[in-house]
Order: sequence, then C-alpha cells, then structure tokens
Amino acid sequence: MLKKDQTYISELKHHVGKEVTVKGWLYNSRSSGKIHFLQVRDGTGIVQAVGVKNELPEPIFELAGKLTQESSIIVKGIVREDKRASSGFELTLTDVKLLQLVADYPISHQSTHGPAFLMDNRHLWLRSKKQHATLRVRAEIVKAIRDYFDSNGYVLMDAPILTPAACEGTTNLFEVGYFDEKAYLSQSGQLYGEVGAMAFGKVYVFGPTFRAEKSKTRKHLTEFWMVEPEIAYADLDDVMNVAEEFITFIVHRVLENRKEELKTLERNTAPLEKINAPFPRISYDEAVELIKKAGLPFEYGNDFGAPDEEAISKNFDKPVMVHRYPLAIKAFYMKQDPEHLDKALCVDVLAPEGIGEIIGGGQRADDLEYLEKKIAEHGLPRKAFEWYLDLRKYGTVPHGGFGLGVERAVSWICGSEHVRETIPFARMLNRLYP
Amino acid sequence: MLKKDQTYISELKHHVGKEVTVKGWLYNSRSSGKIHFLQVRDGTGIVQAVGVKNELPEPIFELAGKLTQESSIIVKGIVREDKRASSGFELTLTDVKLLQLVADYPISHQSTHGPAFLMDNRHLWLRSKKQHATLRVRAEIVKAIRDYFDSNGYVLMDAPILTPAACEGTTNLFEVGYFDEKAYLSQSGQLYGEVGAMAFGKVYVFGPTFRAEKSKTRKHLTEFWMVEPEIAYADLDDVMNVAEEFITFIVHRVLENRKEELKTLERNTAPLEKINAPFPRISYDEAVELIKKAGLPFEYGNDFGAPDEEAISKNFDKPVMVHRYPLAIKAFYMKQDPEHLDKALCVDVLAPEGIGEIIGGGQRADDLEYLEKKIAEHGLPRKAFEWYLDLRKYGTVPHGGFGLGVERAVSWICGSEHVRETIPFARMLNRLYP
Repeated sequence: MLKKDQTYISELKHHVGKEVTVKGWLYNSRSSGKIHFLQVRDGTGIVQAVGVKNELPEPIFELAGKLTQESSIIVKGIVREDKRASSGFELTLTDVKLLQLVADYPISHQSTHGPAFLMDNRHLWLRSKKQHATLRVRAEIVKAIRDYFDSNGYVLMDAPILTPAACEGTTNLFEVGYFDEKAYLSQSGQLYGEVGAMAFGKVYVFGPTFRAEKSKTRKHLTEFWMVEPEIAYADLDDVMNVAEEFITFIVHRVLENRKEELKTLERNTAPLEKINAPFPRISYDEAVELIKKAGLPFEYGNDFGAPDEEAISKNFDKPVMVHRYPLAIKAFYMKQDPEHLDKALCVDVLAPEGIGEIIGGGQRADDLEYLEKKIAEHGLPRKAFEWYLDLRKYGTVPHGGFGLGVERAVSWICGSEHVRETIPFARMLNRLYP
Repeated sequence: MLKKDQTYISELKHHVGKEVTVKGWLYNSRSSGKIHFLQVRDGTGIVQAVGVKNELPEPIFELAGKLTQESSIIVKGIVREDKRASSGFELTLTDVKLLQLVADYPISHQSTHGPAFLMDNRHLWLRSKKQHATLRVRAEIVKAIRDYFDSNGYVLMDAPILTPAACEGTTNLFEVGYFDEKAYLSQSGQLYGEVGAMAFGKVYVFGPTFRAEKSKTRKHLTEFWMVEPEIAYADLDDVMNVAEEFITFIVHRVLENRKEELKTLERNTAPLEKINAPFPRISYDEAVELIKKAGLPFEYGNDFGAPDEEAISKNFDKPVMVHRYPLAIKAFYMKQDPEHLDKALCVDVLAPEGIGEIIGGGQRADDLEYLEKKIAEHGLPRKAFEWYLDLRKYGTVPHGGFGLGVERAVSWICGSEHVRETIPFARMLNRLYP
C-alpha cells in the first residue's frame, strides 16, 4: 500500500472534479503565451495539464513555462473529462513543484535518432511512447502465458540456467567458469521440463535462455525468454492441440487488454482478430510443395530458411503448423515417426505476416536404446546425459511439448520491426550495454 | 486441449461412479494375496486402485501383482468416494496396461538415502511426496508474487542476465566469455528496475540471479530467483508498507491454496497464520540492543550474522523490519539518511522461526554528485555505470524498492531444512548436476 498523496494517471477516472497530485515527468509541452499545455507522464499514462496565466500565481505560471523535457515534477490540478484527450481527461493546473530541471535530454521529440544511438540510450528510450507500449504488451503476453498454463493444471518448473550439458549440441553456447568446473548457459529448459512432466504430469518451464549465435538479423537475440510446456502421456497431436489453443488465448488476451498500446504502435489488428484455433496443419512434404509452387529453389531434406518460411506462411491467414520434418535435420531427442522412419514427430508453428517460426516442439524419443544411439550419433557426452536417460529407464511414457520464444511472439503481436525492441535490454552480437 | 481419454487424479471428484482412465506410474503397492492395493500417481495426486482377484481377468490381476515402483502404467477403474483416502477417492480396478516394468528404481520407500545421493538423483527425487509438495508450494508462491504485483499496477520488467557491470561490486561474480568481451551473470536486476521505475512508475523484475559465493550453508545457492519491485516517488516508509503487505499476501495465499501440500510437509501452520501486516519496525540501533540483551558478542557498526538475526527475530512472531543500517556496510546505491548521516535509508526483513533475512531493500540515492562520489569510493568502473547515472541526470526522483529471494521464502513457508529442496535443480558450490 502506498501513501495516498499521489494519484496515478491511469486512475484519474475516479477523481473527476477533484484536485489530484500527479508525480511524474514532463513529456512534452507547448504554450500560447497565456496558456501552458504540459504533457505530464507518470509511467501509467500521459495527461495534459493546462496552466492559465490569470488563474495561477505568477511564479507557478512562470515555472510551468520553463519546464524542459523529462524534468521531474509534481503537479496539482483539477480533473476534467475531455473526450479529445487520449487519456480521456485533462488537468486544470493549480500547482507545480519542480524536483529537477533537466538540461539536454538526449532523445528529443523533434530529431530522429539512429538505432545504435537509441539502443545506447535504451535506459531513457524506454520512456518513449512506442517503447513503453511495446513493453506493456510484453508484460501482458507474459501474464497471458502464465495464466494459460496455471489455469490448465500445469506446474511451473524453473529449469537451471547453469547447466553441465548442452541441449542441442555444444556449438552456440556461452561458457561460464563455475569454480573449478565449466558450465554452460542454458539454451533451453526442455530436458529439465521432461523431468518435471514425469513428476507433475504437466509442467511449464519459463525463463531466460541463451544462444551465442553470431547472427545479426532482426530476429536474433543472444539472451531471450522462452516458455516450454511439457506433458506426460502426450503425442504429437496433443502438442499441436495445445499449441493452437495457447496461441489463440495469448493473441486475444492482448487484443482485449492492450487496445490503447496497439493503437499507439499503429498495429493493424485485423490480422490478429483472425487468429483462432484450429490452425492449418501441413506436413514438411506439403510445405516443400508450397515453396516450389512459389518458385523458390529448395533442396528436399533441408531445413527452411526465412524466405522458405515466408513462402509457406503467406498461404494462410493463421499460424500454420508444419509437422514431420526429416529426422536428420532435427535434434537428438525427437521421436522417430513409426510410419515414416525418415521423419520426426515434430512441429514448427510459423506465424503469418512474414514472422516465421514462433514455436518448435513435438513428441520426444521415449525409448532408452534409441536415445542412447542418438546421443552417440550426435557426438554428445553420454555422462552429462545420464540423468536424462534415467527418464527412459524408470517409467518411460510417451510425452511431448514445445517452446515459444517470447520476443518473437511480442514482435509479431506488436508488429515490431526488430526483436531488440521487444525486451527491455536486448543482448546481441555487438550489444551488451546498458 | 488434451484428448479426453485421460482423467487426472485431481479431477476424480467429477467422475464418481464412472469408469476412468488414469495414466501414470506406480508409486507404491501392497497385497493381501487376494487383493492388490496399487498407489498410482499421475503428477496431480496419488490414488489407490484396488484390484480384487475374483473380479478381474486372471492376467490383469497377475500383472497388477508384479508391478514395481515407478513402472509406467495406464489403469482403468470405477471412482468411489472414500473418506479415509488422502485424495478422498479410490478406484475399483478394472484394467491395467503396462508401458514399462521398472527394475531397481534407485529411491526406494524403504531405505533412507543421504542428501548427496538424493541430489545426484534429483531428477527422480522430485517424484517423492515431500519434494513434489515443496515444488507445488514454490509454484504457488511464484504465482502469488506475480498476482500481487500485476494486480497492483506494477509492470513486469525483465532485467538482463548478461551484464557489463556488477551491481554490488565485482567479487562473487560469474564471468562469461561474450564473443570478444567479458560479461557477468546478474547478481540483481535492481539497477535495471530503477530504469523501469522512471519509465513505468512501478515495476517488478523477476528472474534468476547468480552469486559465486563459496558458502556451504543451508541458506546459500549460487543460482536463485529473486523478485525486485521498484517504485518511483517512494520513500523508505513506502517500501516498508509494500513489503509487509506483499509478504502477508503471499503467506495467506499459500495457506489458502496449498493446505494439502503443507500437511504433506508436516508444516505447523500456526506460526504462518499470525503473519499479518503491520510488521514491527525497529532501527539497527534497537536491533543491536536486542542482540546485546541476548548476551551475544557484537561490535556496533558490523552487519548481522545468522546468530544475530536469530537473536533479533526471536523477539517477534511476525517478520521484523530492521531499518537504517550503518551506511558504511551497505551498497553504494543506498540513500543516506538526512537525519543520521552515518545511516542508510534501508530495510532488511527478518523472517521468524530462525529463517533470517528474506528481504533487503530501501530508498535509493537520487543525487547525481553523491552517487558519483560513492561509485568512486567503492572502486567501481564509472564507465559501466554511465547509464545508471543518467537516471539521476534526467529527471531524478526519490525512489525505492526491495528484493525477495524466492528460495528463502519457500524454505520459510514450507519449513524446509535446506534451501536446496526449494528449487527444482539446485546449484551450489559443489553441485552443477543434474
């Protein structure tokens, strides 16, 4: 409980006609000489405070006129409804107290700054309208993810970040000195999620994951958040059923609760309104046909690149679920399709609007001997996987799950140009600051 | 949505009198020769399935009799209410399908195993009743934490794990090779939370944090989860108000929703029922008096050790909030108390029952010059903190927050002996596996 001497802008609707105290910062201002219009932000919104010369004590009016962008201020004013205002309200200014007059705030509303400059000033850039809106959508998506799993009987299972072994091989791993040992930052919590599925039936792992990839695309971060449900006694169809219900839930939650933010982001929500389960399901083979039909060169058996994914997904106005990729290009833990021995019981979900893969998952290999063979084939250190093999030794069952990258989901739903704007502090090949 | 051919044990109450299919594992069993009693677990609970010889086909009855611990099985049975059963229900067995007969499951109900063995087999130990209960309480606490902040207007703000600088100095840091640079694993998201408070008013950071401490106590992990709210325009009193309301909320949420688990853990809930805001607030000086009254040797000006904290907290049956420690022993970012220049506007919350500190927080230094001086005094690299100093250059305001260590909170509420049982996969000085 906070002290009652402050009203948040998001709460102004409860105080119409009354004097309130807003504690915040000057976002922007203009003046007609006799009237100052102050755009005040407090993190929950922006409200215009109108200061009229002959209604205010002279020093207050003067102070209101010399405030600079991001100066910290405490303003008092009477709340008035105003349909034209984006917040729906305006303040008739009665008092201003200045905490700090700011000189030379680096990110002005007038000039345009390049991405490197903005990312160097990410700690300030977050105060800007669009960045602010994107991160509020992110918070809503994270909450929707947790609500979906919590309310459907999944137990949260935090996987370790410091791991002795690599989930998908040892390339692209960040190495950490762990006292006298070596550890690696987790690329995925899935293998630990499988432990959880055997103990709790249904679990979800949700935390940061790391890939030391030297990619410099607009889709790659070296540190990103991933949510990974894992379900005992689930097959590939179950995994696809959950994936489509889950994505539908998230998209509609954001459409419902973050209208204002999507408007700020100028996001056309029409394509999002169409996202409803069931999603189209096509096999890898059928997807390859779509690529060929689009006239792209593609060698059967390869994984899809970004242009291939786009060629596939543009045929649908919903996410498309591509299942049964060649076993040879997939991770060691994938279950072999008993009906097509060269295929894996896996699925990638490709989002529309050129976003590409947002989910990868499938059914896991549950046979001990098969998995032992695969670990050897992939040249992985058997000793580090003993615990994982134990899951196939002691009560193995069919099971599966998937992983959703949070930043790609935010990027899709917000319509962000670059994934770096979807996380408070992006980490990329050349970006470790601030 | 999952296929309907499976009923979870937690849902049996909706199927009384009907035949259901439970997919799980054998937890335990006994037999009278003519009746087999199978304890079946599926992750959501344990139910007894009773197989009567002359009511079952011979091969089914025989199979039921030879099942071993953790064998994976699909059982069918009729749901009957049974007040004596811990789940409230029993199954009259009609069918058993065996997926895998397990030989030599390492963790038997009969023998007692040492902690090193159990931790080596953590991936299996999680299936045991008490570990299972502890992690369900953990999940409930995490949800309570998020619900508290989400419903009180805080925006979730994920801080980076890979950081260029150290929050509280460079000792006890894990170093990571970051392409051609060096990075450190985050010890705390607080400094980034302060960025968030200036952009969103109220935020909370919630994620894993890392300390490369060589401590081998029952309270230390090298990787642990921490939640850190940060509030613009808050002073020390506000921080203490939020802390006591927050802790009260969490404790009562667990008491309400996790009764069964607390019973499994044999947790005496009477001390927890007493946890209600307001909490006692005493100064460091008053706390020192309590230590001296308890007859412990203590040099004024030092930080409290575990025995000191116990001597303080045993005077209260609620968490006690100790504020205004000597500035000299606190981190560089603490605000100096203007009324006692040798003290910091900080607070530690000490939980009762000998648990010790579960929260540390306070008001942050908001004056640029003061903070510059402190960074120099602490020998920290100024360049790495430029962004943090910008928060004092561009619209500085009073602000504060705190950090709660999730594992210590779980340990307190569950009454765990060792913090290693409060996280799925503990990381400690000599523990990086599984």
